Amino acid sequence: MSRVAALYPNDTVTLREVGLRDGLQLVKTWPSTAAKRDWITREYDAGVRRFEVGSFLPAARFPQFADVGALIEQIDGLEGASSAALALNERGASDALETPLDEIVCVVSATEEHSQANARRSRADAVELIRTVVRLRDESANRPIVNAGIAMAFGCSIAGAVDPAEVLRLAEACLEAGADIVGIADTVGYAGPKQVGDLSAAMAKLCGGRAFIVHLHDTRGMGIANASAALDAGARVLDGSLGGLGGCPFAPGATGNVVFEDLVYLCETKGMRTGIDIERLTAVREILQSEMPGEHLYGSLVRAGPPPNLAWRP
Amino acid sequence: MSRVAALYPNDTVTLREVGLRDGLQLVKTWPSTAAKRDWITREYDAGVRRFEVGSFLPAARFPQFADVGALIEQIDGLEGASSAALALNERGASDALETPLDEIVCVVSATEEHSQANARRSRADAVELIRTVVRLRDESANRPIVNAGIAMAFGCSIAGAVDPAEVLRLAEACLEAGADIVGIADTVGYAGPKQVGDLSAAMAKLCGGRAFIVHLHDTRGMGIANASAALDAGARVLDGSLGGLGGCPFAPGATGNVVFEDLVYLCETKGMRTGIDIERLTAVREILQSEMPGEHLYGSLVRAGPPPNLAWRP
Repeated sequence: MSRVAALYPNDTVTLREVGLRDGLQLVKTWPSTAAKRDWITREYDAGVRRFEVGSFLPAARFPQFADVGALIEQIDGLEGASSAALALNERGASDALETPLDEIVCVVSATEEHSQANARRSRADAVELIRTVVRLRDESANRPIVNAGIAMAFGCSIAGAVDPAEVLRLAEACLEAGADIVGIADTVGYAGPKQVGDLSAAMAKLCGGRAFIVHLHDTRGMGIANASAALDAGARVLDGSLGGLGGCPFAPGATGNVVFEDLVYLCETKGMRTGIDIERLTAVREILQSEMPGEHLYGSLVRAGPPPNLAWRP
Repeated sequence: MSRVAALYPNDTVTLREVGLRDGLQLVKTWPSTAAKRDWITREYDAGVRRFEVGSFLPAARFPQFADVGALIEQIDGLEGASSAALALNERGASDALETPLDEIVCVVSATEEHSQANARRSRADAVELIRTVVRLRDESANRPIVNAGIAMAFGCSIAGAVDPAEVLRLAEACLEAGADIVGIADTVGYAGPKQVGDLSAAMAKLCGGRAFIVHLHDTRGMGIANASAALDAGARVLDGSLGGLGGCPFAPGATGNVVFEDLVYLCETKGMRTGIDIERLTAVREILQSEMPGEHLYGSLVRAGPPPNLAWRP
């Protein structure tokens, strides 16, 4: 079995916890390294296996990710767990390849406008960067999988509407450049379930038997409905963050990623086993509450818990 | 066209605002009659047409509904608008029939246990009450439609799991007793989207070309995903309450009804026109904020508003 199929089989649901990366991208305070380790350990004990833990960015500008290497080392020691981290340029990728990382995440914007504003490069250059990262990866000892995430895939805060055909074209270009897996991201929470279902179905077709990732934000309350539509359309890998951490710089007042706990509950009610114990998972919110007291935590399941008097898993 | 088909056509989506009834059922403070009138007027101006405005219950025990008749009179004067109100016994139905009410709502529990605990009658007696209400209605001058809502249709806080076949049997019994329309209610927010989609599809089949109502609570964050699944399965009439008002006595800490504003947005993103102006609608929350300052208002769309730079209605 290929390494990507081992990490992301397409016949069962896999949830990626991106709180340690996307959730900390914009915050002013963040957990200590010890608290982050505890976050990982306790989520691992709850059954979480796929962790996105940071970005390979200059620590002077992004001090919240200065400990990314230490977290990757930690996860390397956890049986069955895998680590992912962002690399936004060749330098970041080289740094990443010196760690025992399992998955290196690159980003391509769905629109030329966002690509230039966010990464100061064209979309074509972003695809070329993936090709370079794949080459560097192939020359490295560790050989993590390469994940190409398409940002603004459902609408762009700068360019507005995004043609799904353009997203599919970019997804194909990323795969052609050697990416092992592609993701579609609703970066600013513009999508509704019909749009997510339609693009997920097209991605499932494009990717054949391979898995793809759906990364959702709950900016307008559609997060769980969008996740449900993605699953119905054949998506099997979804991102979320504990407590819905992760605001967006382009949408003031907006919430962050779709809430991981609620996502687990959604999958389980659909009869899709996540391997995650919801009560142990929600208890990990304590770490965020004590380490990031200024951050509002989201999530609905935590208020009432699963139905107490029936077998709610079909 | 029958009166029920005029109120609830099955070829377009209709949203019922139940905040003035379900939203006020358990609160300790409630808006003045003047503020309730303002709530109705402003929602009407935003495009809302179906209002559930209270219950015909003894005013001594339920003072929040003492003005139900005045609100029904108000709505009677609004072109194209209709009023619904609960009647839980023959006395309530008789009182209701003395007003220009458009829709009288009766409740049947999906489980014998909840029926006895909540209404002190068997389910069979609840169905017989519908037959009586239909007869009283047929003898009345006003002739509102009769709506039979099946509470606990997706799981019961007392009895636990509920067999969907039992819900369908009850729905059929209500129609046989003369109900013009039947609803399925997730009273304690137990349902997930698969369950809601499956039962909605079965209800669509049972009801043939007639509409049926889906009444959801957002207790565990599945409200909008459940609504989306109901719509996908053919449901065309959904309940919601402004700001998600409406806690549940059986689920401490739980939120109330699915948020009306988010429900409007969901429908519109699916290309289903509601006729409701979202910005004017969300502005009506001001009334709840000033009249019920102790109540937590829910809703996600209100934080960010619809996507600002694209045509998000397909």
